[in-house]
Amino acid sequence: MRAMASTLALLVLSGMMPATAGAQTEIFETEQADFTLVTVAEGLDHPWSLAALPGGNFLVSERAGALRYVEQGTLRPEAVTGLPRVMNDNQGGLLGLALHPDFETTRWVYFAYSEGSSSANHTALGRGRLSEDGRALHEVETLFRVNIDKARGYHFGGRIVFQPDGTLVLTLGDGGLYRDEAQNLGNHLGSVVRLNDDGTVPFDNPYASARGAQPEIYTWGHRNVQGIAFNPQTGSLWAHEHGPRGGDEINILEPGRNYGWPAISYGINYDGTPVSDATHADGMEQPVWFWDPSIAPSAMAFYQGEEFPDWQGDLFIGALAGEHLVRFEIEGDRIISTEELLSGLGERIRDVAVAPDGHLYLLTDSRDGRMLRLDRVIP
Amino acid sequence: MRAMASTLALLVLSGMMPATAGAQTEIFETEQADFTLVTVAEGLDHPWSLAALPGGNFLVSERAGALRYVEQGTLRPEAVTGLPRVMNDNQGGLLGLALHPDFETTRWVYFAYSEGSSSANHTALGRGRLSEDGRALHEVETLFRVNIDKARGYHFGGRIVFQPDGTLVLTLGDGGLYRDEAQNLGNHLGSVVRLNDDGTVPFDNPYASARGAQPEIYTWGHRNVQGIAFNPQTGSLWAHEHGPRGGDEINILEPGRNYGWPAISYGINYDGTPVSDATHADGMEQPVWFWDPSIAPSAMAFYQGEEFPDWQGDLFIGALAGEHLVRFEIEGDRIISTEELLSGLGERIRDVAVAPDGHLYLLTDSRDGRMLRLDRVIP
Repeated sequence: MRAMASTLALLVLSGMMPATAGAQTEIFETEQADFTLVTVAEGLDHPWSLAALPGGNFLVSERAGALRYVEQGTLRPEAVTGLPRVMNDNQGGLLGLALHPDFETTRWVYFAYSEGSSSANHTALGRGRLSEDGRALHEVETLFRVNIDKARGYHFGGRIVFQPDGTLVLTLGDGGLYRDEAQNLGNHLGSVVRLNDDGTVPFDNPYASARGAQPEIYTWGHRNVQGIAFNPQTGSLWAHEHGPRGGDEINILEPGRNYGWPAISYGINYDGTPVSDATHADGMEQPVWFWDPSIAPSAMAFYQGEEFPDWQGDLFIGALAGEHLVRFEIEGDRIISTEELLSGLGERIRDVAVAPDGHLYLLTDSRDGRMLRLDRVIP
Repeated sequence: MRAMASTLALLVLSGMMPATAGAQTEIFETEQADFTLVTVAEGLDHPWSLAALPGGNFLVSERAGALRYVEQGTLRPEAVTGLPRVMNDNQGGLLGLALHPDFETTRWVYFAYSEGSSSANHTALGRGRLSEDGRALHEVETLFRVNIDKARGYHFGGRIVFQPDGTLVLTLGDGGLYRDEAQNLGNHLGSVVRLNDDGTVPFDNPYASARGAQPEIYTWGHRNVQGIAFNPQTGSLWAHEHGPRGGDEINILEPGRNYGWPAISYGINYDGTPVSDATHADGMEQPVWFWDPSIAPSAMAFYQGEEFPDWQGDLFIGALAGEHLVRFEIEGDRIISTEELLSGLGERIRDVAVAPDGHLYLLTDSRDGRMLRLDRVIP
């Protein structure tokens, strides 16, 4: 795509931006906005999720199990205390974060994590009240656990989003070696679950009273859902999932629907063998978008804010394998254009979030991971 | 996009394919199909449109005004006789071709062209009966002319498609220097018109009996429409238009609708000034897709055939400035994925068509233009 050339056309200016003396600040010129990347924090160990606290501070989860605190732009050396022990094996660890909708009153922080051992583990959801000084979680409790154990450290899902109705949605994965379980309503593997803020089951969940189905299940037939967000234009719930080779998808989640994995897929297995002959089947949903080749999508956020007026309503998705940031233009619930940003950065992007200050923030996935902020440059 | 890397990953094999002794045949490896490019004809002077005749022969229009005949894979040196004189200035000349739905009986060939002088010209539609030997057009007549003259050689539109109801649709442009006329129903500039096969106005055209409107107008508010095709999945009529900088669009054409140019646009003027502050307005349609940066889309074809089973239903669009071939995956009337093909070719693509033999054919835009055929390679 020609967008790549444009994104790569970096203008290196000296002295225009506030920067370390003698340093040069790259300006990323893109179709709708020019921006610089500011490193807010570095030395993060595989950071996975960030949550913007009121007042400009941030929580950042590190996959190995630590919850970190960024105070007025500076990473505190000590982790927040009070978290449970997480299983840190391969993709497993401390994963997504979300704040309670009434966080200022309740101080509840929600976190997804892997629990157990390498031979028997599952995704869990916990919460704890963050102390006023941001140094500890108190009253920590586990609200939900996937109801069967699996082996190995693959496909945990792990993103959390609160809905306007006060319920939360937690994304899960098929466990990697257990793909057929994504078509089994009897367990939570390969589903997205919906819970009340205290972990109980909402009465209006699609399988709340179905015999043989897990009542927490909201949607099913997923492979590994690691991005979820509300579309503010329409109120619909968008999610993306890691597919097999050539089968990453974006779906609009509607209660009770089956998204088809592994019965239908646009991708093939990593070894080149087919997953399925079919891309369509009755009773199974079609994606809004798929990537072929795969980019390994990692997070999603719809932009709303004042910093980037020309990005209003746009959808941003991070790419791990793809090492870029995707921008989609959205019309209602349709994607109508796309641009690839930050292709020249050479970093796996694990999280993308919009903070109340109107900036986009990113986490890069590495042992020396960074938290980055996009600052608009007005040409 | 990562598709680019894959498209560029050409495997050069020797001897595997039937080829000139000692020659090497490039195999283009893409996500759903591998193929080679076969040069059917070369030395074409800015070829613009091709029409596949029954029995495997082809007509090719050259912008300067010649209609060429490709007989069993060989370009005849002499042009088909009988065409009117065309105005050949800049973008003007002999443009789109289409065969009558009952061509085997009627032998009618339809052609769009520019007529007049550099200071006063318009798009016209003609037809003539092709002799059995393909050497001449007889009974040539002009069926339609844009009702006002314009100066300079810009924005003629010029694609023709027959609809299942037997009517034909001809795409037009805003004339380049006359953009505001695209919002004026009193002339044909910036519209798409619908005609009976004899050039008369269909009784059910949206403005057939509207006072002050041209009765041929089917849709309006266009800039320069140079691709049009039926979506066989849905029966809807898709068209793309050249936008300003960053504003190329694909639209689904519905009778009587206003597509907004220049009142709304996703692009800006070539000199960087805005076309309009708005991308949306009441009573004006939103595109299915837009390109930013622009690619200069040149033609469109939905693939149906046996040669490329994994491309069934996909939409192909040529890019002039972009110098590639776009493949879109389509679900109903939505685009759900995209791939960029032939990025490494370095040729402006002017036409893309699917012939009854199931092959995709391309025309490259240059003084030494080529007609190319995509042949599938089974790995």
